[in-house]
Amino acid sequence: MPAPKPELKIGLIGTGFMGKTHVFGFASAAKVFDLPYEIVLHTVADVTDTLAETAARRLGFRHATFDWRTIVADPAIDLVDITAPNALHKEMALAAIAAGKHVYCEKPLAPRASDAAEMARAAARAGVRTQVGFNYVCNPMLTLARRMIEAGELGTIVNYRGIHAEDYMADPAGPFTFRHDPAGGGALADIGSHALATAEFLLGPITEVMGDTVTVVRTRRDATGTDRPIEVDDIGRAFLRFSSGASGSIEANWLATGRTMQHDFELYGTKGALAFSQERFNELHHYDAARPDGRRGFARIEAGPAHAPYGDFCVAPGHQLGFNDLKAIEVLGYLRAIAGEIDEPFGFAAGARVQTLVETIARSAQERVWLAVPNPAAAVRGEP
Amino acid sequence: MPAPKPELKIGLIGTGFMGKTHVFGFASAAKVFDLPYEIVLHTVADVTDTLAETAARRLGFRHATFDWRTIVADPAIDLVDITAPNALHKEMALAAIAAGKHVYCEKPLAPRASDAAEMARAAARAGVRTQVGFNYVCNPMLTLARRMIEAGELGTIVNYRGIHAEDYMADPAGPFTFRHDPAGGGALADIGSHALATAEFLLGPITEVMGDTVTVVRTRRDATGTDRPIEVDDIGRAFLRFSSGASGSIEANWLATGRTMQHDFELYGTKGALAFSQERFNELHHYDAARPDGRRGFARIEAGPAHAPYGDFCVAPGHQLGFNDLKAIEVLGYLRAIAGEIDEPFGFAAGARVQTLVETIARSAQERVWLAVPNPAAAVRGEP
Amino acid sequence: MPAPKPELKIGLIGTGFMGKTHVFGFASAAKVFDLPYEIVLHTVADVTDTLAETAARRLGFRHATFDWRTIVADPAIDLVDITAPNALHKEMALAAIAAGKHVYCEKPLAPRASDAAEMARAAARAGVRTQVGFNYVCNPMLTLARRMIEAGELGTIVNYRGIHAEDYMADPAGPFTFRHDPAGGGALADIGSHALATAEFLLGPITEVMGDTVTVVRTRRDATGTDRPIEVDDIGRAFLRFSSGASGSIEANWLATGRTMQHDFELYGTKGALAFSQERFNELHHYDAARPDGRRGFARIEAGPAHAPYGDFCVAPGHQLGFNDLKAIEVLGYLRAIAGEIDEPFGFAAGARVQTLVETIARSAQERVWLAVPNPAAAVRGEP
Amino acid sequence: MPAPKPELKIGLIGTGFMGKTHVFGFASAAKVFDLPYEIVLHTVADVTDTLAETAARRLGFRHATFDWRTIVADPAIDLVDITAPNALHKEMALAAIAAGKHVYCEKPLAPRASDAAEMARAAARAGVRTQVGFNYVCNPMLTLARRMIEAGELGTIVNYRGIHAEDYMADPAGPFTFRHDPAGGGALADIGSHALATAEFLLGPITEVMGDTVTVVRTRRDATGTDRPIEVDDIGRAFLRFSSGASGSIEANWLATGRTMQHDFELYGTKGALAFSQERFNELHHYDAARPDGRRGFARIEAGPAHAPYGDFCVAPGHQLGFNDLKAIEVLGYLRAIAGEIDEPFGFAAGARVQTLVETIARSAQERVWLAVPNPAAAVRGEP
Repeated sequence: MPAPKPELKIGLIGTGFMGKTHVFGFASAAKVFDLPYEIVLHTVADVTDTLAETAARRLGFRHATFDWRTIVADPAIDLVDITAPNALHKEMALAAIAAGKHVYCEKPLAPRASDAAEMARAAARAGVRTQVGFNYVCNPMLTLARRMIEAGELGTIVNYRGIHAEDYMADPAGPFTFRHDPAGGGALADIGSHALATAEFLLGPITEVMGDTVTVVRTRRDATGTDRPIEVDDIGRAFLRFSSGASGSIEANWLATGRTMQHDFELYGTKGALAFSQERFNELHHYDAARPDGRRGFARIEAGPAHAPYGDFCVAPGHQLGFNDLKAIEVLGYLRAIAGEIDEPFGFAAGARVQTLVETIARSAQERVWLAVPNPAAAVRGEP
Repeated sequence: MPAPKPELKIGLIGTGFMGKTHVFGFASAAKVFDLPYEIVLHTVADVTDTLAETAARRLGFRHATFDWRTIVADPAIDLVDITAPNALHKEMALAAIAAGKHVYCEKPLAPRASDAAEMARAAARAGVRTQVGFNYVCNPMLTLARRMIEAGELGTIVNYRGIHAEDYMADPAGPFTFRHDPAGGGALADIGSHALATAEFLLGPITEVMGDTVTVVRTRRDATGTDRPIEVDDIGRAFLRFSSGASGSIEANWLATGRTMQHDFELYGTKGALAFSQERFNELHHYDAARPDGRRGFARIEAGPAHAPYGDFCVAPGHQLGFNDLKAIEVLGYLRAIAGEIDEPFGFAAGARVQTLVETIARSAQERVWLAVPNPAAAVRGEP
Repeated sequence: MPAPKPELKIGLIGTGFMGKTHVFGFASAAKVFDLPYEIVLHTVADVTDTLAETAARRLGFRHATFDWRTIVADPAIDLVDITAPNALHKEMALAAIAAGKHVYCEKPLAPRASDAAEMARAAARAGVRTQVGFNYVCNPMLTLARRMIEAGELGTIVNYRGIHAEDYMADPAGPFTFRHDPAGGGALADIGSHALATAEFLLGPITEVMGDTVTVVRTRRDATGTDRPIEVDDIGRAFLRFSSGASGSIEANWLATGRTMQHDFELYGTKGALAFSQERFNELHHYDAARPDGRRGFARIEAGPAHAPYGDFCVAPGHQLGFNDLKAIEVLGYLRAIAGEIDEPFGFAAGARVQTLVETIARSAQERVWLAVPNPAAAVRGEP
Repeated sequence: MPAPKPELKIGLIGTGFMGKTHVFGFASAAKVFDLPYEIVLHTVADVTDTLAETAARRLGFRHATFDWRTIVADPAIDLVDITAPNALHKEMALAAIAAGKHVYCEKPLAPRASDAAEMARAAARAGVRTQVGFNYVCNPMLTLARRMIEAGELGTIVNYRGIHAEDYMADPAGPFTFRHDPAGGGALADIGSHALATAEFLLGPITEVMGDTVTVVRTRRDATGTDRPIEVDDIGRAFLRFSSGASGSIEANWLATGRTMQHDFELYGTKGALAFSQERFNELHHYDAARPDGRRGFARIEAGPAHAPYGDFCVAPGHQLGFNDLKAIEVLGYLRAIAGEIDEPFGFAAGARVQTLVETIARSAQERVWLAVPNPAAAVRGEP
């Protein structure tokens, strides 16, 4: 009979959509995987006691508080999970790190790369384990893609094309939101960050960028009825150079009428190619140039037990994972990192890296010049 | 502040793949939906105390037992969940029904339709709520299809084509398993049952069938090293007549090399058509004949908040549900039926109905004649 | 410098859509391929001199006649090409055969199988070369499929599923046409014939069938304003047994709203599988079970120079053939058969065979019994 | 009875792949369409008399010559068709124009934009009609896209993404060819030109570009066994600004392992979106934002008689056009322009325009700055 697992007590700040998603992730991960810890939903914080208590009951936390500092100050809590508004991430995370907590933070780590970098440095100094919520790279099919690249199955990769397009801002009459905040907003930051994270996850450091940003909808009305000028990009593009020698591009677009999740990539190597769309994220399309003449073609590989950790969810192929399952995989990786089994899959350093990429592209677009991306050693790599 | 919910105490029999899947379903449903009950994982039974205790710890049950009768006899338990081998379903379910429990039973309800019907009658007499695990019909895209049909969006449906094909028996050297048991085994029973359930869920009662069954692999070796003759079908087909006037066909095939989940249908009406594949089950393809000339085509509708209960899993479209999420929807429907809010979505009567369809097709195939399906009033309908 | 080619003088009867298509086929074949003959468009016949003369000018024939017998009687003419109404095929073909002409006839060879067989026998006795217009099997991707099957790349084929569905009769208010003629009409005869031809082309003789036919639209108005009862099938289905041991099914449906050319098949073998749709007929999807675990999937093979005779149309892959190109390939095969280089690709015997299959299925459906298909040795085989 | 058509006598220079394709185009156009002229294949020129005579016999020309100047000088010839090597286009075209001939020239019009512009100016001064072979835009589905955009069906277009990727240079060991010639070679010129032509055809003038070009394979061996440095781009990319206000990007890549014809675009407007791939060029995918909630999705519109001139090829939908059919449509447009019925669909001005776009992008890439594209009034527009 196995020894009981150590407990990992969670303090959650924020109970909106992402807070709920994180709790699903913890619950699902605990059911699906043999985690290194027993997860305890300890305390949840929201802006009033009533909201917090309702959330605690609904989500299964033992305690509730209107004050997130209570969580940070509570010595019983091991891990602080931040799903509060982006503007608060830094203050909360730094406080939690200072208190010696592990910190799980939704993306973006902070609106500005310099703040994100400060958070990453603080975490490194304190020796706590961190995680930023870039769940698309938790997909077993992306892990498969990464492994195929690393194993040389595709030869030398020469070209990369990444996209993240959705239509949630396609209505020109839609309101001004926090996503339009000049400090940290825009399509490039909001969803281009995913395209960039996936690009570095797959191909390694991006060393140079040329950006292009466009604001299409020039004003939007805010909650007070005021027409606010929009300064952030609706569409962002970049040419990319990778340290591997590959070149490529990404596009971010939140005006893409009809697209709900076009997080796609194609990459071409000397021995093969891959094509992926998040619209059908249980598939990876693989072209193997070594197949015999007349028999070659992009093969639709369906997710199955050969693609860990799919098999923990389902023993049979073809059953498919859902979005919430990706969050469970994110939790698994993070807890294994806390237990010291693996490096941080997507820690604060990776989160800060993505912000650096976004800001460098945005600046390049503004100045209309190619820019080097500082510190390639910091590139997103993850541990698939 | 809402009143606390009544508890619903679960006793689970069986801790294999489907047992684990049911527990995921309960856990996920509790997080995702505002269920009418507080689910309590009360007792789990497996064949030895050690196995049961390990499962209890792993799955989160309070109590464990080596004897499933303990669960049936425990007055604290409200719902008995049976994921034990098929041959035991009847005895367990009848005992649980006799004890006044609600019963949740994995498919097939029983290897023989007569046994399944006896179980359904017992449940009806006892007034308990039952559920059989036909989770494919819990997909919001199938609910959408059903609603479009019922609303007349497709006109009069004239043709139906259903398939359930996989390749888990495609290796002729694979072993003899319980799925090859002459009493209740075969592709038609194992997966054709899904195709039939979906057909009636969408179009209503099947009234007449002409079956065709084929055994391709004639012997398989069992665990004792004995070559056992195979009497069940590897491939089953049927022509169908529906009480609505539509005609159609289904095919079941567990030798379909390369297919992991080809649970597909196409249906054609006078005003439109639908095409669906479980291989991409977050999509429904819809042809609307009323679109202007030159603009018509099958539209790929992606699952989103417009397709309840998708929105409970995720507020944004395009994120996609996974297989385990369908099980959570199954749990939601069942608990709502227990609470009296809706009719049983897929109760024992529906489970028995599917067995009747399977047996009628098998007999038709053997006798090589068209057969009427008894009792169309019993057809699978569900409550989408 | 090559010797001049012998001339092959064509007499065309009928100048409608199919007549025009045949002329495209001759013209295109002459440009694309190194044919064994110089094709001469000699005489065209239509029902009046004026119509015939207009067609001659438009289509490039030297002579025109209102009387098809002129063509048959003209000793200069080598090949009689019949695209007149189906009911006239037999009389015309027998006369042409009697005059020692090669005969090219659009499908169906004749409304009744017995007539078609008589035509085939006459051609065989006279030693002339014949061709029936089953152009779908002229697709290089179907040739590829056939060769993969014959080479054993897919192992033993165990299951076949064929469909030919379109929507050209989907409007219940559409008129009564010659396609509704009780003698030889119906979906099974009109398009099911294609599904059957493809099935035998790929897998060899069909030995036994169980048919199912349905008439959905019970009356249609004819040109005189009379409501005519419909006796032919709108939907036809069949279970199939092949002499190879495989089993399968086909469906014909001309009420399939939204489908313009669903001539599809899937076939499953012990080592692999193929999936094809005429909707994307420059592709063949191939699953190779020998690929490594985690890398398997249906590969989309695109038509290219590796798939003869694609390379005669275009030296580069990816450019795609069109429907009219398939007709040119049909012409190539026929002329090579006339030159004695290959067997008839799809001669009158094959045309008669398809009619036999259609009639046997129709009779089986009417009598509701399985029927053996006579004379498996006559099966469609073609020379890909 | 119609009056006989005036003859249009063709002189063809060059008998390689494209020469043959042009002859198919003439032949097919003459059969399919009611052209304003009777096409006469008058004289063909190749580098020796023998080659020219063989080609004449094979392709159906009356006369043959080893000297292309004979064609230019022959007063009987109306139209000079140039499919000779790119480097010769200018000299031949200017001579033909000076002789008052209409000139049909394969792409690229000339390796340098300045030469192409000179040719366009000469044609304009001489008042002859010209055509450059950009056949992808002759696809009825692209005409449909253009008409939908112009009719406002998609609202204001805000984003465009175009690709032309193939793998014909993916083998690093492949030889040095004329396509690597520093004057006018490279992926951007060879296939990026198609992506640019399609972009302007659909959205109108491109006003500003930022280019990015990459040479991956640094040397290739030429026919003499010499390793030649490669100066042209293997991959070319550009950000685009359109005079309409839309922004976008294109990519050209001839190292795209596994791609044979990825001439794709997606465009997003405020009311809808379109997605197209030349890999399935008989389809256009259309998202209509006005469809009801829960019923929206990209609809796969299949080419049919509603999309002129498809109906001239085939009276029924779903039969599909092939690549050679697009060439016939190109011929139709050109002959209608010669007859004065429409403007030149893709005359020398359009051909020169594409060269200007290519060169501006290449220069932008080299100088790493955004550049304005001169003379937006010259943009490719065509007459669909």
